[in-house]
Amino acid sequence: MGRLTGGDPSLLRRINSAVVLHALRGADFPTFTDLTRITGLSRPTVEGVIEGLMVAGLVVEDAPEEDGETRRQGRPARRFRFRAEAGHLLGIEIGPHRVAAMLSGLDGRIIGAGSREVTETAPADERLDRVRTTVADLLRRAGVARSSLRAVGVGSPGIVEADGTVRLGTALPEWTGLALGERLRRSFRCPVLVENDANAAAVAEHWKGAATDSDDIVFVLAGLSPGAGSLIGGRLHRGYGGAAGEIGALHLLGRGATPETLLSTTDQPLHALDEPAVAQVFADAKRGDAQARAAMERFIERLVHDVAALVLALDPELVVIGGWAAGLEDVLEPLRGELARFCLRPPRVALSLLGDSAVATGALRLALDHVEEQLFAVEGTVTARR
Amino acid sequence: MGRLTGGDPSLLRRINSAVVLHALRGADFPTFTDLTRITGLSRPTVEGVIEGLMVAGLVVEDAPEEDGETRRQGRPARRFRFRAEAGHLLGIEIGPHRVAAMLSGLDGRIIGAGSREVTETAPADERLDRVRTTVADLLRRAGVARSSLRAVGVGSPGIVEADGTVRLGTALPEWTGLALGERLRRSFRCPVLVENDANAAAVAEHWKGAATDSDDIVFVLAGLSPGAGSLIGGRLHRGYGGAAGEIGALHLLGRGATPETLLSTTDQPLHALDEPAVAQVFADAKRGDAQARAAMERFIERLVHDVAALVLALDPELVVIGGWAAGLEDVLEPLRGELARFCLRPPRVALSLLGDSAVATGALRLALDHVEEQLFAVEGTVTARR
Repeated sequence: MGRLTGGDPSLLRRINSAVVLHALRGADFPTFTDLTRITGLSRPTVEGVIEGLMVAGLVVEDAPEEDGETRRQGRPARRFRFRAEAGHLLGIEIGPHRVAAMLSGLDGRIIGAGSREVTETAPADERLDRVRTTVADLLRRAGVARSSLRAVGVGSPGIVEADGTVRLGTALPEWTGLALGERLRRSFRCPVLVENDANAAAVAEHWKGAATDSDDIVFVLAGLSPGAGSLIGGRLHRGYGGAAGEIGALHLLGRGATPETLLSTTDQPLHALDEPAVAQVFADAKRGDAQARAAMERFIERLVHDVAALVLALDPELVVIGGWAAGLEDVLEPLRGELARFCLRPPRVALSLLGDSAVATGALRLALDHVEEQLFAVEGTVTARR
Repeated sequence: MGRLTGGDPSLLRRINSAVVLHALRGADFPTFTDLTRITGLSRPTVEGVIEGLMVAGLVVEDAPEEDGETRRQGRPARRFRFRAEAGHLLGIEIGPHRVAAMLSGLDGRIIGAGSREVTETAPADERLDRVRTTVADLLRRAGVARSSLRAVGVGSPGIVEADGTVRLGTALPEWTGLALGERLRRSFRCPVLVENDANAAAVAEHWKGAATDSDDIVFVLAGLSPGAGSLIGGRLHRGYGGAAGEIGALHLLGRGATPETLLSTTDQPLHALDEPAVAQVFADAKRGDAQARAAMERFIERLVHDVAALVLALDPELVVIGGWAAGLEDVLEPLRGELARFCLRPPRVALSLLGDSAVATGALRLALDHVEEQLFAVEGTVTARR
């Protein structure tokens, strides 16, 4: 109980520093007086903390542009702001057909993005090379030095271990067993956090997508190999072994048909990663093509079953459907209807708002979480109060 | 940040009191010196806290039986113990065929138990009457006054709201919509906490059953109307609307056969609550009866599917199978085999160790949690360090 009854001065400094930084981020060019009021700390404490943060480059004395009227009415109080430009974050998506990256400052505001195509058969080395060029190009265009990066988040298909190794990833060649985190860490001098793509997308929709108003969500990556990510009480639920939400395996149990077969309008199943072919089936169904409609119905039935399994197990407030750019909006109504019939407490169902950018956005948010934890959290106390 | 940097004296007293109580429960008749060492508090603080706790009846001066050798070697130091007998807790199971109750002191040690049969068609009033007589009889036999009860936990089938109202409960007559918590609160002057039965059983197996070594578990109540409860990081996962784990509805989706049909060896489905008939099928299958074996296989296939859905959604470390007293052990091997085939990270699978008593035991633990939170927790700080 030392931290409550005793007095560790360096811990106290860290707490006070985190509290002042928080106040700085939330306020608009606060003065010492503002910060004293917001934090409840003493004026000398606030002054000491601000001095330290300025030395560390995280805070700068600054004031908003003033208009002519209010300028020069006596000597103004010193004002400060958090230097979001003191560091940068990357969010990276590694997918079957493309890699994408997003760049932000320490406030999480996106200041650049880029992507590159890659063939689905590309070996791991080639795919990682594509990631490196995409990132290098993005940094160059944004004028951000690599040394300014504080954390990199990565969203990848597959079950990802805590150290960033892909335990199992059938969607990409040479992916199972790949030490993805370690490989990427060679390109960066900051922490690299690797997360399952559906998990990253769930985080993204909660941050700035279709799920900003709910803390209990399931995000369904409704691809041909469907996966899901879930937040419980606002926190990512990874499962004991990082495999939570890998609902794609459910169809193997006594249900022979894979999504590739279900969505095919011929004798042959679609290729597992052929998203244009899927878009074509969706478009044909919309036009009224009977075979395509039948395929679509089979696919929806299957999707309903997978989503129902997730919903019954987790009881989320909201299900967000994403993963394919086009056509998924037609899935919503039948999904809502079926869930209402079979779930004891049917959740709301919404379409992804972030679409293509969900995975990279979520990866960026995970990098931001990591940095915020270092900057603002003291043994979880401050984080919990945020 | 007042609680870290400021000095609220009453809060500090509560924290210190909780810390000393914790130390008392964990130690064996500690002295002031022991408590000072364990808690890191000053001697005068410990003495003041102990005095307050003695006045409150929660602590008593007491010493273990000494043997002849060590007796009377100078004046012994004062020793103290937590008075587990200062209050009592009840755990109640309300089931289709019986109601059961368990009684403990504040340390959670069971000091009495009782049950009564009830017909599955009994109306709600009769079932609640049966609960009341069971409890009254148990208290009388244990010599515990009703006024000594500090909290009552109740496990019931159905989706239960936070206030103890049954939102949906098809297993028992007149159960949907029943204000179960409110009805039972009339019989007690302490808090009454109502929980879904599978959730309560999950808590019980984690406390003292098959899941004491894991914090990420799914408990499957493998009845004819299967349900499940899960712990994530040691905490009960209720879901947004309290419906998490109600996997029984999954068979309604495109799979016509109910467990009652699957397990029947005739043209007619079993009655949904006829557990003796199920036990008979299990026993016949064990004896080698072909029809019973086929029924059992159909049932297992179904159970595997439900459990796989839970496992894929949640990725627990351990699945505990319970719910029927007899026969379930034959389910384990096929379940393990199938989960290993279809789950990306198969969990361990174990049989319930608590059997019949799981629900009441879990209900008792929930009552104990409630009381411990009041006695020992200060804004979550102390609890987290337990």
